[in-house]
Amino acid sequence: MHEKTSSSHGDVGYDIPALPGMDAADIQTPCLVLDLDALERNIVKMGDYAKAHGMHHRSHGKMHKSVDVQKLQERLGGAVGVCCQKVSEAEAFARGGIRDILVSNQVRDPAKIDRLARLPHHGARIIVCVDDEANVAELSAAAQTHGSTLECLVEIDCGAGRCGVASAGEAIAIARAIDTAPALVFGGIQAYQGAMQHLENYADRKARLDEAIAMVRIIVDGLNAAGLPPQLVTGGGTGSYPFESGSGVYNELQCGSYAFMDADYGRIRDSDGRRLDQGEWENALFVLTSVMSRAKPGQAVCDAGLKSMSLDSGLPVIHGRDDVRYLGASDEHGVIADVHDVLRINDKLRLVPGHCDPTCNLHDWYVGVRRGKVEVVWPVSARGMSY
Amino acid sequence: MHEKTSSSHGDVGYDIPALPGMDAADIQTPCLVLDLDALERNIVKMGDYAKAHGMHHRSHGKMHKSVDVQKLQERLGGAVGVCCQKVSEAEAFARGGIRDILVSNQVRDPAKIDRLARLPHHGARIIVCVDDEANVAELSAAAQTHGSTLECLVEIDCGAGRCGVASAGEAIAIARAIDTAPALVFGGIQAYQGAMQHLENYADRKARLDEAIAMVRIIVDGLNAAGLPPQLVTGGGTGSYPFESGSGVYNELQCGSYAFMDADYGRIRDSDGRRLDQGEWENALFVLTSVMSRAKPGQAVCDAGLKSMSLDSGLPVIHGRDDVRYLGASDEHGVIADVHDVLRINDKLRLVPGHCDPTCNLHDWYVGVRRGKVEVVWPVSARGMSY
Repeated sequence: MHEKTSSSHGDVGYDIPALPGMDAADIQTPCLVLDLDALERNIVKMGDYAKAHGMHHRSHGKMHKSVDVQKLQERLGGAVGVCCQKVSEAEAFARGGIRDILVSNQVRDPAKIDRLARLPHHGARIIVCVDDEANVAELSAAAQTHGSTLECLVEIDCGAGRCGVASAGEAIAIARAIDTAPALVFGGIQAYQGAMQHLENYADRKARLDEAIAMVRIIVDGLNAAGLPPQLVTGGGTGSYPFESGSGVYNELQCGSYAFMDADYGRIRDSDGRRLDQGEWENALFVLTSVMSRAKPGQAVCDAGLKSMSLDSGLPVIHGRDDVRYLGASDEHGVIADVHDVLRINDKLRLVPGHCDPTCNLHDWYVGVRRGKVEVVWPVSARGMSY
Repeated sequence: MHEKTSSSHGDVGYDIPALPGMDAADIQTPCLVLDLDALERNIVKMGDYAKAHGMHHRSHGKMHKSVDVQKLQERLGGAVGVCCQKVSEAEAFARGGIRDILVSNQVRDPAKIDRLARLPHHGARIIVCVDDEANVAELSAAAQTHGSTLECLVEIDCGAGRCGVASAGEAIAIARAIDTAPALVFGGIQAYQGAMQHLENYADRKARLDEAIAMVRIIVDGLNAAGLPPQLVTGGGTGSYPFESGSGVYNELQCGSYAFMDADYGRIRDSDGRRLDQGEWENALFVLTSVMSRAKPGQAVCDAGLKSMSLDSGLPVIHGRDDVRYLGASDEHGVIADVHDVLRINDKLRLVPGHCDPTCNLHDWYVGVRRGKVEVVWPVSARGMSY
C-alpha cells in the first residue's frame, strides 16, 4: 500500500510539518512557510497592476503547483486562470476546480494528448501550445474522439531558444492548420521570453524585451493580415511584465514568481535601480530550517540542504539576518557561517531559496502563517506532476 | 481533499507513469526507470564483497528512499539494515517493515526526539548519532518516557567538516554519557568521510581515507582504553568502501549509490584507473525522457529538466548514445544537441542523472523494467521526508 501522504499513521509519526492552529514555533522543519500577509499583498498588487494597464493576468501555476494559491490569485488578484507546463499539472488544477487552464508547452505523447483532450469535459477551458504542424492533426483527432474542443496557441520563440517558431510564415501556417482542423480553435500566440527574466539590470532586460516585442508585433501583424487575428497574445514574467504591459501587443501576462519571490529574482533591479525584493515584491516564501549541530566554533549546521531547496540558481539567503550566512548544502544539511557563535541548537531560520519553482516542487505542503500562528496547511497539489 | 498519490481519478488522468505488465515503450515520461537486472547484479555484488571482506553492509536508504529497494538489498545483498538521515525517513522504513534502522544524523528537535523514541515499539532496532553531550540527556528522557531503548553512536567528523566531534577526548566523554544514561545503549561510532567520495583519482581518495582511518583508529583505541569498546564502527560510501573494508577498524559499510549509480560517481576511477560505471557498478537508474519539440535544426527539446533531475553534481548524461548530448535544463525542459538531426518527436532517451539521491527525491515512483516490460512500480516511500 502506498500511504505516503495520509496525514496520520496511528502513533508512528506523521508526514505533515504542521497543523492549523499550531504556534509557528512548533512547525517541524525543514518545510515551506508562506507569510500569508505578504503573499496576499503581492497578489493584490499584481492584480491591481494588470487591471490598471488593461492586461489580463494568468498566474503561472508551474511555480506554486497549488490549487489553493491559484484560487487566492483568482479571488484577490483577479487572475483569469492558470498556466502550467504539463498535462498532469493541468489535471491537478482541473481536479481542484480551476476553470481556465493554459498548458504553455507542447504535448506530443499520444497518451498525454488523449488525457488533455478529455479535460474539457471536467468543466475547464483547455488551451495548449503548438510549434509543429504535425501536432495539429494529433490534437484534432484526440479532441474529435472525445467530443471536446481544444484551444491552440502558436508558440513563438522570442528569445528563449527552446521550443517555438520564429517567423511570421511558420506561425501563419500553423495558425491556419489549427483554424481549419476539426475540434480545435485558434486562440492566438504564446510568446514568453524566458532567457532575459533574471538579467539584473533593468535596461538590459528592456533591450531584450524590446527585441522580443518587435518580433511578436511582426507576427501579430502577419496573422491579422492573413485573416487569423490572435485573440490571446500571452507571455511575460516577473522580470519582464512592465514591458509586455506597455507594448500594445500583448494582452495577457503570465507572472508566477512575483507571488512568492526568491533570492534570484530578488537580486534584479527595477527601473529605479532598487532590488525587486525591496519595493516591488515581498518575500512571502521561506524554507524554514532548524540548527541541529554546532560541533565546531564559528559554524552551525541546519537541517535544510539539497533535498529541501533547489540550488540551480544559487544558495539560499538567510532572511532578516546579516550576522549569519548559508555557506553550502549537502543532501540534508546546510552549513552556516556563524562567526560570533550566536546560533543555538533548535534556533529557526527563514531561508529565501535561490529559485522558488523547483524548491516548491520538493515539498508536499505549504504552511501558511499569520501573526505567529499556523493558519492553513495547503498541499502542493501538483508536486512531482511532470508527466 | 488531498488525493495526490492515489493512482486513479476516474477518467481525469492519473498520477502514475506506468503499471506493471505494460510495455516499456508505453511508460509516461519523465520518470525514474530501474533496470532490474542491473540493480540486482549491483546488489548481489556488494553483498558478496562485504561478506568476502568480513564486513556488514547497512545500505544507505537516503539514496533510494524506497522500502522495496531496501528489502531487495536485505534479501539479495545480505544488508543488515538501513541508514537514513531523518526521523521521517526512519518512520517510513519502520512502517514498511524494515527492522534495523540507523539515523546517521543528529536529532535535536523535541518533537522529533519524541517520535524517534516511540519507533522501537514498532519492532525496529533504532540507532541514532550524537555529537553533543546535551543531546544524550534529551534522548534518554524521551526513551524513558516511552519505555523504549535507543542505541546511540558518537559521530566522528573524519573529514566532512560538518557534524561530529574530532578528538578521542570528546568522543569518550559523549560515549560515557550515553553509557550511563538510562534507556540508552552506547553502540559505537559513526565515521563517514563524505567530502572525498567524489574525488576522481583513486590514490587521492585513498590518501584522504587513510587520514580518516588513522583518526578513527585513535578514537577506537581511546574508547577501548576507557572501557567503552565500540560494537559498531560504521561508515564508508561508494567512493571509499574498499578502504574502510581493508582497515581493520571499521566493521560496517554504508554504501548507497552503488545500487543505482549516477554520472558523478560514474566518472571516478577504481584502482585500475577504470571509470566506476565501466566495471565496478552498472547504471541501473535512469530518468526516462521523451523528445517533445524540435523546432530548430541541430537541437531537440526533451521533457525532463530541473524538476526531474537535480543538477547539483552536473548535467545528466544520455545513456548509450554518443551522437546526442544534454546541453542544459530549465524547469521542465532539457535542450539536447542533435547536430545530425537524428532525434524524432516522442523518441525516448535514458538519462543518467548527475546525482542520484536528490534526483530520486523528486519522483513518486520507480518503474522497474526487465526485458522490455514493466515488472514493478514501487513508491519512493520516503520521498520528501526531510523532517
